[in-house]
Amino acid sequence: MAFDKTRIRRLPELAVEKRGQIEAILDEGFVCHVAYLVDDRPVVIPTLYARDGDRVLLHGSQASGLMMAVKRGSSLSIAVTLVDGLVVARSGFESSANYRSVVIHGTGRLLEGDEHERALDVLVEALIPGRLADIRRPTTKELRKTAIIAVGLDEVSAKVHAGQPEDAESDLGTGVWAGVIPMGLAVGAPQPAPDLEPEVEIPDYLTGYRRS
Amino acid sequence: MAFDKTRIRRLPELAVEKRGQIEAILDEGFVCHVAYLVDDRPVVIPTLYARDGDRVLLHGSQASGLMMAVKRGSSLSIAVTLVDGLVVARSGFESSANYRSVVIHGTGRLLEGDEHERALDVLVEALIPGRLADIRRPTTKELRKTAIIAVGLDEVSAKVHAGQPEDAESDLGTGVWAGVIPMGLAVGAPQPAPDLEPEVEIPDYLTGYRRS
Repeated sequence: MAFDKTRIRRLPELAVEKRGQIEAILDEGFVCHVAYLVDDRPVVIPTLYARDGDRVLLHGSQASGLMMAVKRGSSLSIAVTLVDGLVVARSGFESSANYRSVVIHGTGRLLEGDEHERALDVLVEALIPGRLADIRRPTTKELRKTAIIAVGLDEVSAKVHAGQPEDAESDLGTGVWAGVIPMGLAVGAPQPAPDLEPEVEIPDYLTGYRRS
Repeated sequence: MAFDKTRIRRLPELAVEKRGQIEAILDEGFVCHVAYLVDDRPVVIPTLYARDGDRVLLHGSQASGLMMAVKRGSSLSIAVTLVDGLVVARSGFESSANYRSVVIHGTGRLLEGDEHERALDVLVEALIPGRLADIRRPTTKELRKTAIIAVGLDEVSAKVHAGQPEDAESDLGTGVWAGVIPMGLAVGAPQPAPDLEPEVEIPDYLTGYRRS
């Protein structure tokens, strides 16, 4: 994995195929890692996100360090990484991981008012499609405590590493096993909360929940 | 998920239980996100890592932006996040993710000579325990092309979010389903490389491969 040699491009410059690849990766993931500056030092944290057209929406709380940094105008760097497996080559050097990853650079904008409330809806529905219709509207207090940051997909790059090991010719036929260990996100059966009324059935959008 | 309200502590200050929790999270993961500075802006990338006692070893290539930043003495921030599920509360506000995460702050040291070669061994064996004995030693050229950065676990914090939703009393009994969707890393059956000799069997350490 050596992501950072990939050139960051502005989204409009990208071929349609590349844009589709970036959007597919962002839509499959839901946890990103966002880096921001605190006293000229980088800080990286995980947070929930959703793609909303040509931007990503990051979830946080109003009092968090990320929100303070966004208010100061800090540059942000956001990575979404989907791990697809381990590449088990005949040498350590050729061994690596299969993954799909997107990195976004930009600054964030803290959403307010109606745009903030609509963004929360987008986030809820992106995390669990179908959920929004089942839950009540957020209260004024809840809206005040929650922060959503929008970051445009202006500077974005994707890197995909896939497939079997590419061992040196001299390493072939040496009796050492080589191949791939596939990996992915497993989704288990929904587990009802202990305080759920027994007659409430699991909605279809949860029994069929998948991220890919 | 609002990781960044957690206080970063120096490892020796932490209770034994907290140290054990941090080590367990770092040992279960193998992909981290590392943030560094380029022209005073943060850049975050995914990379493979392993814990080696009181430090983490990050894998990279000599020509990468991360290595250049380390050579310039850039501060680093490293996050390891294990996603355990989605918390499906009766309100959007209480909905969140279950996860275990560690964040490390520090500077990196590029390893050289014997220490570099030993660190590569540690990385190979941490990714796939048992693998080291099966593969040849790295060549001088391979060692030159690979970089390993050591970052001490001096400033480190962990955050764990687990369990069922904690809905407001007024949301209970409303007929809205609530609970948890468990998630985790799934490991599939090893897939042999097309150029593997048919008589080479899959080693036990690969058929039994697990990360947790």
